[in-house]
Amino acid sequence: MKKADTNKLKVAICGASGYTGIELLRILAFHPGVVITAVTSEKSAGKKVLDIFPFLAQYKNLVYEPMDREKLLQKADLFFLALPHGASQEAVHYFFSKGKRVIDLSADYRITDASTYAEWYGLMHNYNDTLRKAVYGLPEIYRKKIRKARLIANPGCYPTSAILGLMPALKSRLVDLSTITIDSKSGTTGAGRKADLGVSFCEVNEGFKAYGIATHRHTPEIEQEISSLAGKKVMVNFTPHLLPVDRGILTTIYARLTTQMDTKKVLSLYTQAFAAEPFVRVLSEGTFPNIKHVRGTNTCEIGAKVNPRTNTLIIVSAIDNLVKGAAGQAVHNMNLMMGFSET
Amino acid sequence: MKKADTNKLKVAICGASGYTGIELLRILAFHPGVVITAVTSEKSAGKKVLDIFPFLAQYKNLVYEPMDREKLLQKADLFFLALPHGASQEAVHYFFSKGKRVIDLSADYRITDASTYAEWYGLMHNYNDTLRKAVYGLPEIYRKKIRKARLIANPGCYPTSAILGLMPALKSRLVDLSTITIDSKSGTTGAGRKADLGVSFCEVNEGFKAYGIATHRHTPEIEQEISSLAGKKVMVNFTPHLLPVDRGILTTIYARLTTQMDTKKVLSLYTQAFAAEPFVRVLSEGTFPNIKHVRGTNTCEIGAKVNPRTNTLIIVSAIDNLVKGAAGQAVHNMNLMMGFSET
Amino acid sequence: MKKADTNKLKVAICGASGYTGIELLRILAFHPGVVITAVTSEKSAGKKVLDIFPFLAQYKNLVYEPMDREKLLQKADLFFLALPHGASQEAVHYFFSKGKRVIDLSADYRITDASTYAEWYGLMHNYNDTLRKAVYGLPEIYRKKIRKARLIANPGCYPTSAILGLMPALKSRLVDLSTITIDSKSGTTGAGRKADLGVSFCEVNEGFKAYGIATHRHTPEIEQEISSLAGKKVMVNFTPHLLPVDRGILTTIYARLTTQMDTKKVLSLYTQAFAAEPFVRVLSEGTFPNIKHVRGTNTCEIGAKVNPRTNTLIIVSAIDNLVKGAAGQAVHNMNLMMGFSET
Amino acid sequence: MKKADTNKLKVAICGASGYTGIELLRILAFHPGVVITAVTSEKSAGKKVLDIFPFLAQYKNLVYEPMDREKLLQKADLFFLALPHGASQEAVHYFFSKGKRVIDLSADYRITDASTYAEWYGLMHNYNDTLRKAVYGLPEIYRKKIRKARLIANPGCYPTSAILGLMPALKSRLVDLSTITIDSKSGTTGAGRKADLGVSFCEVNEGFKAYGIATHRHTPEIEQEISSLAGKKVMVNFTPHLLPVDRGILTTIYARLTTQMDTKKVLSLYTQAFAAEPFVRVLSEGTFPNIKHVRGTNTCEIGAKVNPRTNTLIIVSAIDNLVKGAAGQAVHNMNLMMGFSET
Repeated sequence: MKKADTNKLKVAICGASGYTGIELLRILAFHPGVVITAVTSEKSAGKKVLDIFPFLAQYKNLVYEPMDREKLLQKADLFFLALPHGASQEAVHYFFSKGKRVIDLSADYRITDASTYAEWYGLMHNYNDTLRKAVYGLPEIYRKKIRKARLIANPGCYPTSAILGLMPALKSRLVDLSTITIDSKSGTTGAGRKADLGVSFCEVNEGFKAYGIATHRHTPEIEQEISSLAGKKVMVNFTPHLLPVDRGILTTIYARLTTQMDTKKVLSLYTQAFAAEPFVRVLSEGTFPNIKHVRGTNTCEIGAKVNPRTNTLIIVSAIDNLVKGAAGQAVHNMNLMMGFSET
Repeated sequence: MKKADTNKLKVAICGASGYTGIELLRILAFHPGVVITAVTSEKSAGKKVLDIFPFLAQYKNLVYEPMDREKLLQKADLFFLALPHGASQEAVHYFFSKGKRVIDLSADYRITDASTYAEWYGLMHNYNDTLRKAVYGLPEIYRKKIRKARLIANPGCYPTSAILGLMPALKSRLVDLSTITIDSKSGTTGAGRKADLGVSFCEVNEGFKAYGIATHRHTPEIEQEISSLAGKKVMVNFTPHLLPVDRGILTTIYARLTTQMDTKKVLSLYTQAFAAEPFVRVLSEGTFPNIKHVRGTNTCEIGAKVNPRTNTLIIVSAIDNLVKGAAGQAVHNMNLMMGFSET
Repeated sequence: MKKADTNKLKVAICGASGYTGIELLRILAFHPGVVITAVTSEKSAGKKVLDIFPFLAQYKNLVYEPMDREKLLQKADLFFLALPHGASQEAVHYFFSKGKRVIDLSADYRITDASTYAEWYGLMHNYNDTLRKAVYGLPEIYRKKIRKARLIANPGCYPTSAILGLMPALKSRLVDLSTITIDSKSGTTGAGRKADLGVSFCEVNEGFKAYGIATHRHTPEIEQEISSLAGKKVMVNFTPHLLPVDRGILTTIYARLTTQMDTKKVLSLYTQAFAAEPFVRVLSEGTFPNIKHVRGTNTCEIGAKVNPRTNTLIIVSAIDNLVKGAAGQAVHNMNLMMGFSET
Repeated sequence: MKKADTNKLKVAICGASGYTGIELLRILAFHPGVVITAVTSEKSAGKKVLDIFPFLAQYKNLVYEPMDREKLLQKADLFFLALPHGASQEAVHYFFSKGKRVIDLSADYRITDASTYAEWYGLMHNYNDTLRKAVYGLPEIYRKKIRKARLIANPGCYPTSAILGLMPALKSRLVDLSTITIDSKSGTTGAGRKADLGVSFCEVNEGFKAYGIATHRHTPEIEQEISSLAGKKVMVNFTPHLLPVDRGILTTIYARLTTQMDTKKVLSLYTQAFAAEPFVRVLSEGTFPNIKHVRGTNTCEIGAKVNPRTNTLIIVSAIDNLVKGAAGQAVHNMNLMMGFSET
């Protein structure tokens, strides 16, 4: 740590050799208020960050360490946890109960109802008191709560794109809640950094498929937040697909309008709803998002169209799954918690 | 023409330098009953096929010619027309009225109602008598008519995937017709072979976007056929997307079930419905199509899943847009018309 | 086995769940003289071929079995072995010594000098008598020997592209043998079908790198054959690179000319040299190969250019690494051995 | 222009709707010392930057204008010219002769010898006095001159990767100058942003080819600079290839060593030579560059290996063609000229 760093926030990243962890390192490299004091990785413990990821040249002296919680506790004041679901439960509780700030990028603290969590993730939640303290880290909905929180459950990538896409329509009660269909397409980094035949180049390249139809674990997360926005329990059809690209999620959402309304009116509502948001861009009529345009950014692009023949609202939203869908939003949440500039 | 070719069907391909035309050449290269006697291309007139497409080595002596209809008439008995929409109207009529067999790969003879055609394509149909003779070339529905037809309107790529995906559900009256949503994703050959910034590599690669939302011209074609299957007028939401791959269409279809029914029951209906079809493969429970698995083939793969929480049927179908979605289906239709083996 | 199959050659494929094995199945599906009677795979033993590769619909009843040599011996008369290097040594010897025909797609019988093999592969060769019986299966050089052989060492993918690219130049003594540089670029199927982070989509996609510089095991295989063509010992620079595509090898070869000579003259020599070859296509002046044009084919495309400023001959050759570089060439060799038609 | 901007350097970009121009906008968006006061584009004149490139959100009010030189002269003090070769000659001269600073990203002022320029570009150079004032903008060689220059000829993308890769070897007289072969592979943005069948997705994707063999216009630029480094006239073999990726150049260089030397020794020389360079990273033994690791960065990664069997030095260098190969290096040059921080 250089001298100038002594006033900076000390940050540790647990699980820093996956795509989300690397992206956190990349984004924080230029953050003026932060210094990374520890990174953990079971697989890569003992190795220099630079030896595995030579492009992270800013972290010349950073070495992966195994996850020794007591030791880590001394090293940092804020912890980003990019651990697998399940594994995060206890680690979050530990750091949080020791008074640290925690931003959890797993799903373990997103579902506020422990029985729903148990049903979809096949795991009991053992830290219900801590769970109740967690704030769902979508700044466009929970900015005020996030500013005061000490524990953030950072949203999933699909939910981020789906919830932002539906938010104004639900708040303004535009759509029939029993007709919501969410058809999402994600780049392959969404599957994680791993040795697996299913994500090998020759299986993914020039291919495209749906998976987890009607059973994907992001479903209850989406339903929880849109039910909350709608003021009543909502169930949706949610189908994820695997795109042969590195990064990006495009989500196409269909919902029957409750009254007749044209595209212009819908877009005007959307534009207003997000007017103050630095990271949401509502596109003008006739323009629709492309994941390429949000690549590497923390922006969510949204386009909308009414199909008058079926009186259906069609929303298309695009994010970079590793940035707005994970690491970028996590840093946004940190900025809000710490009173740093949002952008 | 070699001696052995004298008993073969003489075939001309008009518009043979686009992706569909090339694919026709590729498929027919090994067809035992056919000899290609003429290929036309305005842009490439005078050039050898081999000079532009060196991999079509079978056509050593084939030279592109301009489209001189009188001359072509002498050369062939069956005409594949892979011309732009609009341009095909008159050419089809000409060859058909001269007693030739015609397989039209444009949209000009697909829409049986001339006013619907006018509305979506912005063109009057000037050959209503000929239009009435055209048979929609989807063998899985119209095999008998195709056998006796002299004019085939070869289906569009998106409609092929959507109609086959819905066919058994509609025939068996499984779904609420007011709830059909069709979310399609197509490879870039679907946009045609052309110099255009929008399909340039750096715009498409690592990108993904929706286009033609609620306005795509394949909508009335889909609605015509599924209305016919359903026995009443149906309107649908149809959204095409552009995939960063060469070939392939994956279509994800959502429709509310009218009664409760599980996935097993639906799949059993689908399997029965397509049991005799050489080019449709219904996948077993839990397995879903990948465009990679149908690449280069004339097969339509179909998977199905019931979401019991929303009582919605979700169908996923995959085809190669250039084969089952265009040239392969055209050859299948030719085989049926001529009494050749289907496969 | 259907009745009509009783006169066909009974073929077994050992190691039939890798990319090469699948490609063999794909190519042989339409071979009129052959019936596949057994396929082996350790990982997939007990599974139907169709369950893993639904597009191989011709093999409805084929089930992967473990490699029980005694059992296999009864089932087939010709064995394709697509096993890892090293593992192939003994299996080849076994089937060959029992009087069977063998086409080995590993490297184990390509290097005629056992000590060179030991040096580059780190393995002793335990079957020198069998090794001496092996014929290097490059039909463009060894067609006559292949016709009479019972054991074929099927060439590696890089060597196929490099040797064919250099063959006429070496035979005609055009180049300075001390100046040969071979810069090859291969698609990712070349790395095999496996769970490995290095070939995962997000590592390979949008990437490009060299590997095995000056140490790749195909080096001695290339040197053996070009030394033989040149009539004296040659050493080369050989650098392979990994392309973000499924299939295809493009090899760019540089060699100083011994006399001055223009491109036209070189191309005329090349065209003559390969005039009778069904699977080599020499391109006309100013035209150069693209891996896309040979995708899925057994063709090797070759282009040539003389740089008069440096008096250097530059050859570019392209093949599909899985077809001409592996399975297609293996079937070509089988056709030669069995007296089937070559094409 | 906001108030705070009044002390900033006023910058105009001519030709700001191509890939290089966009990349300049992207990089300068966060530059603290610069304000963009004008952007030109013939095709897009009158359109907002934001309407075409919605991700360039920082430039809300920037509108493309046609290239009216008198008007532009009033607006800016430094001009980036990203115009086609030939078109740049006069524009550079105009702004330069009016006392402005100019960074030219075309080839027009790179070749110091006007007759060589005429020979390779087919154009006379009409501004020899201005040409003599131009400094070749490769900071690793000409940093001192650049600091004092008013006119920078920004290097080509291929030359940047080739010259940096060879620089230490030439300075230390390691290699036989008659044996240099440069085999380069570039992403498709290198071909520019244009409607052209040759760069359409379906032609490039899953393809790979060489082009411009022995005739590419970057050849004299490479030869000029390496001749200068070597202290005598050098001619090279240079072959560019087209990679199916957006960005990145990987260059593999071969040259015979004049004495025996191992990899370690070469790498130690290279590491020393670039020790003070912020944008060159020499990799450790056994590690080689991947274009993916330099994507979006201004870094040139270099790896080296000696092949002792042929006594040849093999260098691999990687850059992002749009950043270090164009816009990033241009900004680096601006920083040097203006005394801004280099990084």
